[in-house]
Amino acid sequence: MRGVVMHAPGDVRVEERADPVLEHPTDAIISITATCICGSDLWPYRGHDRVHNKVMGHEYIGVVTQVGAEVRTLAVGDHVVGSFMTSDNTCEICQAGFQSRCIHTTGMGAIGTQAEYARIPLADGTLVKMPGEPPADLIPSLLAASDVLGTGWFAAVAAEAAPGKTVAVVGDGAVGLLGILAAKQLGADRIIAMSRHADRQALAREFGATDIVEERGDEGVARIKEMTGGYGAHSVIEAVGTQESMEQAIRACRAGGHVGFVGVSHGVSLNGGELFGKTVHLLGGPAPVRRFLPELIQLIWDRKINPGAVFDMTLPLADAAEGYRAMDERRAIKVLLTT
Amino acid sequence: MRGVVMHAPGDVRVEERADPVLEHPTDAIISITATCICGSDLWPYRGHDRVHNKVMGHEYIGVVTQVGAEVRTLAVGDHVVGSFMTSDNTCEICQAGFQSRCIHTTGMGAIGTQAEYARIPLADGTLVKMPGEPPADLIPSLLAASDVLGTGWFAAVAAEAAPGKTVAVVGDGAVGLLGILAAKQLGADRIIAMSRHADRQALAREFGATDIVEERGDEGVARIKEMTGGYGAHSVIEAVGTQESMEQAIRACRAGGHVGFVGVSHGVSLNGGELFGKTVHLLGGPAPVRRFLPELIQLIWDRKINPGAVFDMTLPLADAAEGYRAMDERRAIKVLLTT
Repeated sequence: MRGVVMHAPGDVRVEERADPVLEHPTDAIISITATCICGSDLWPYRGHDRVHNKVMGHEYIGVVTQVGAEVRTLAVGDHVVGSFMTSDNTCEICQAGFQSRCIHTTGMGAIGTQAEYARIPLADGTLVKMPGEPPADLIPSLLAASDVLGTGWFAAVAAEAAPGKTVAVVGDGAVGLLGILAAKQLGADRIIAMSRHADRQALAREFGATDIVEERGDEGVARIKEMTGGYGAHSVIEAVGTQESMEQAIRACRAGGHVGFVGVSHGVSLNGGELFGKTVHLLGGPAPVRRFLPELIQLIWDRKINPGAVFDMTLPLADAAEGYRAMDERRAIKVLLTT
Repeated sequence: MRGVVMHAPGDVRVEERADPVLEHPTDAIISITATCICGSDLWPYRGHDRVHNKVMGHEYIGVVTQVGAEVRTLAVGDHVVGSFMTSDNTCEICQAGFQSRCIHTTGMGAIGTQAEYARIPLADGTLVKMPGEPPADLIPSLLAASDVLGTGWFAAVAAEAAPGKTVAVVGDGAVGLLGILAAKQLGADRIIAMSRHADRQALAREFGATDIVEERGDEGVARIKEMTGGYGAHSVIEAVGTQESMEQAIRACRAGGHVGFVGVSHGVSLNGGELFGKTVHLLGGPAPVRRFLPELIQLIWDRKINPGAVFDMTLPLADAAEGYRAMDERRAIKVLLTT
């Protein structure tokens, strides 16, 4: 099959890779209908993470083509969405809703779903069946559920976005934008997008942002305070992963408020004294997308949400390298790859 | 009046201080019945915090002797317990239950309650009336409510101690011990005290600890994991405030679990990548004792809890210096001072 390999920072190629095979009786093989490039794929692309001949991609929707002997809930031909982290969905951590930290979890990044096929470990616990064959226009949204929507949703849930609350969103990438969509669905009164890019501001408003703040850092925090009677936001979504964005998120949050952080942390160090003084709830990490998938698939199926709008470029898998370039140069928010 | 002043690390004296006077119409003056020495008073005593001619003490119970013109809920003669942080109890932060971060809060440490009298700012929002004159044997417990009990209670609430949960407690000082008492009251199934001091282990068991772990650091974490099916504790109370204790707390907690940290943070730096990877709920800071005071006073009044057992030494205020020495040398867990 064909699949994406990152040879080195900036060097992405579509190559012939071995077809996946069932390795464990709990595996399934899927034919990938659509996959995409993640903001986190830019960390190695830009040389912030080491990379050498690495298969790429962890987001996917597809059709089951083979199931292992112990797979109980899936059959060949099922249309499925899965999380970017595998999960048995039975251990105590999964049962508590933290499937991304399942005791048997593995990241789909090591398997590389920017490809024609993929092996899905722990298929029963990882994949969720769609109600049927997805209409073509829903494919981007269903794909988004696999990571960016599920991650933005987790951030909004972790930040306890809810009626009566003001939610601030740090980061205007696909995850931040879908955090806005999630906060809106969760009933938040006021959603402040922190963004200085006109195209992203427009999408933020489409997803439910009521206000835009262009200032960053201390100035951004001061604006949020000003807009919230001096208190700060009840809920803050952090969707970047840098020292600056984490500090901005924590400082924009009111005492007793909730920060949900989902930007993959890079070189972040939190001052214990500041955290102690702030007294905010902090929860973050790789999103337990599996927890939310059944609900998200239904919302998409019923056309109540349109998270697929974050994809502003669609390319065939063969042109993946151009997709990486477009995201790196901020010409695209998020690139969908068709197989 | 007489009051404690710390001239320098290790140099505590009881001296003549000016009698407090009403400075704002929302102030009250109380005659202090009992006060005590806090574990956090040892930070400056041991030279870890700078100190120079500082009035000491932030825990207190007493009798109202004067009220300002705008005080509505208190009268001269009322027996009261107050928090170590003042609060208006009306701002949005207070209404959300985070009175220690009230927009008008001040710390009682600047006023210094290791003294015969104290001015209590925002008296209506800070003080809680007892049902009447407290029986002598309840005085230690009521005094504990002012900080150590309220702080341990907050830690247990932040850690979401509840039926069905295993709670690990890092720190066997008065706050950690009362975190155990709180976890027990909140219905936790299993409470693991991390302690290597026999006297504190005994008190931990009296307060409800079901298990003792003497190992610390990575070994302590490994023991907690071993005792919890490999998962880690659902809830962890951190009651020390050092890098080691915070890491121990976060690492002993299962993914999706809750860490409540109340040890005053000293030189702590949390690795963002580790926090991201752990996916634990984190909440801590100065405890909003005021939130819990009405319930805690009632539990004590009804003799359902006996937090006063943490006081293992009682001295007259005049002998405060000996109290500091005893706590510094670990001859006493916590010292009550009578006026």
